Amino acid sequence: MISIREKIAQQIIGIDQALMQKAGARLDSLTKPKGSLGRLEELAKQVVGITGRETPSLKHKVIFTLAGDHGVTDEGISAYPQEVTPQMVYNFLNGGAGINVLARHAGCRVVVADVGIARDLDPHPGLVIKKINYGTKNIAKGPAMAPEEAEAVIRAGIEIFEEEYRKGIDIIGTGDMGIGNTTASSAITACFTGKAVETVTGRGTGIDDRLFSRKIDVIKQALRINKPDPADPLSVLAKVGGFEIGGLSGIILAAGARKVPVVIDGFISGAAALVAFHIQPLIRDYLIASHRSVEQGHRIILEHIGLKPVLELDLRLGEGTGAALGINVVDAAVKIMNEMATFSQAHVSKEIG
Amino acid sequence: MISIREKIAQQIIGIDQALMQKAGARLDSLTKPKGSLGRLEELAKQVVGITGRETPSLKHKVIFTLAGDHGVTDEGISAYPQEVTPQMVYNFLNGGAGINVLARHAGCRVVVADVGIARDLDPHPGLVIKKINYGTKNIAKGPAMAPEEAEAVIRAGIEIFEEEYRKGIDIIGTGDMGIGNTTASSAITACFTGKAVETVTGRGTGIDDRLFSRKIDVIKQALRINKPDPADPLSVLAKVGGFEIGGLSGIILAAGARKVPVVIDGFISGAAALVAFHIQPLIRDYLIASHRSVEQGHRIILEHIGLKPVLELDLRLGEGTGAALGINVVDAAVKIMNEMATFSQAHVSKEIG
Repeated sequence: MISIREKIAQQIIGIDQALMQKAGARLDSLTKPKGSLGRLEELAKQVVGITGRETPSLKHKVIFTLAGDHGVTDEGISAYPQEVTPQMVYNFLNGGAGINVLARHAGCRVVVADVGIARDLDPHPGLVIKKINYGTKNIAKGPAMAPEEAEAVIRAGIEIFEEEYRKGIDIIGTGDMGIGNTTASSAITACFTGKAVETVTGRGTGIDDRLFSRKIDVIKQALRINKPDPADPLSVLAKVGGFEIGGLSGIILAAGARKVPVVIDGFISGAAALVAFHIQPLIRDYLIASHRSVEQGHRIILEHIGLKPVLELDLRLGEGTGAALGINVVDAAVKIMNEMATFSQAHVSKEIG
Repeated sequence: MISIREKIAQQIIGIDQALMQKAGARLDSLTKPKGSLGRLEELAKQVVGITGRETPSLKHKVIFTLAGDHGVTDEGISAYPQEVTPQMVYNFLNGGAGINVLARHAGCRVVVADVGIARDLDPHPGLVIKKINYGTKNIAKGPAMAPEEAEAVIRAGIEIFEEEYRKGIDIIGTGDMGIGNTTASSAITACFTGKAVETVTGRGTGIDDRLFSRKIDVIKQALRINKPDPADPLSVLAKVGGFEIGGLSGIILAAGARKVPVVIDGFISGAAALVAFHIQPLIRDYLIASHRSVEQGHRIILEHIGLKPVLELDLRLGEGTGAALGINVVDAAVKIMNEMATFSQAHVSKEIG
């Protein structure tokens, strides 16, 4: 029987190149030298190609911030204790976190979901609960999750997207919360890109030289013990991934199937995009990289998928903060295309010659 | 007698380092790993230091878009005819230009001023008229303007700022319109930075190889004939500058004197900032570079003053379009500082160790 993941992946098709050309002609008719709004013009064209709409409207902007815990925190390589994951989720629900501020700024609503936090959270009307398990297992000792859990968390991501899609979605951003998740993301990145662990590992939320060296050893051990196979993306997720990462992969694929642009955040969202990209390479054209994170593995991911970041703000917070700012720029790009006057409307002379 | 320009330059003082430190401590108390919002945190601190307010509010955001013409268009090195300057000013006043769209997006009002357009414009309630002359003279043949005109246009900029300041200003962006003004900006940049003309000259709104080569020759000739002295910024403006450039220099200095952050746009605004910086180097700390333009001279200007651009979007439109997007990011940065919960407010555990 075909899985929901496989069904969704099959629904993703190439974006509309002919309509993008038409958008290019429209952009060239606006009162500015051709191409002078640079990447804003590229982004506007991409949104046209993705949505299949000549004048797309980005009214409903949604950030999905998924939370899960990581058994690898047992290795003592994180700057913060595991209880910070649920504490920060409460902070998201109360509107006090970085993502809340930046989502308000960009006019986005934030959907917070527990897909694998190590404890049960108090119920809250704003909290989506699709918990697959109470955190992953320690990847330094064995697989993060069972194969059926990897399948289930991707399905959970698809369901989270679909429930929200019914309320209206024009563009999404991805975000994460999970102490220990840069470790899992580095392992995923090393596996899919073939780069050395040292090249794809950073200091996460801020660890010293000793812990950083230990973190690299732990990731190497996780890859050695689990032997994830890059040709089998689900197994990579199961062996060295995380629940919030897999959930985001599901959201990304579901958005692609619905022709919704996906603005990815930093390193963890990048790892989720990597999994989605290896499930269905066509997803690439639906992705917009909001920024380049301080985490060095993020650059490797963007190059591997073939994405150019919109912002360079030295961010390394996660939560979807960079995605919110990225959505704001995409919003500006689409307004340029929709709202600017043409040369003939404004009676402005065109180029000489 | 001391000129208004000298008086304003004297009023510019160093920004408040002690308060910036306090802002840094406040940022470190917020629910995020220290420094994890990168440049957003730096920008928030800078705004605190400039304004002298612990929780600055950026309610009144204003883009000043100044227009002037350039006699050097006689040399036939621009992609657009001179009549595009007034045509685009009408476009600004009618709300159809790129700057209008992006200013609306960022919640800015746009102040459009004629400081030197080659013809008289129809009156419009939104148009500030402080015309110094009907365009500059051809710098390939002699000075752009008389010394007293350079002084007058800086004074005009100060007056334009002051009139608007009375209505409320918390942050400004600079913008320009003037066919031929990349030529003047390259000449100014070459003069102040000592770089070769080839290094600081780009293709403006889009000229071919032949015109590009001719443009470089014209700039070299302008510098040879006029011999602007970088030690005398007013003479540089008079000899190879432009009215909109000088007006923006005045606006920048006036903003500094009023402790208002200045978000500079691309190459032409950069040339105006260069003039202001050479009049009063303390202005540097009041400046925020919104983006790095495609025009290669812009990078040289930013390095010379010591500014790091916030965005890299391959823009080359001018008008203040990059500044509007930059203001939007600064706005986000200030909201982070003002609105995020602290660790103790949100009951989130701090770093281990």
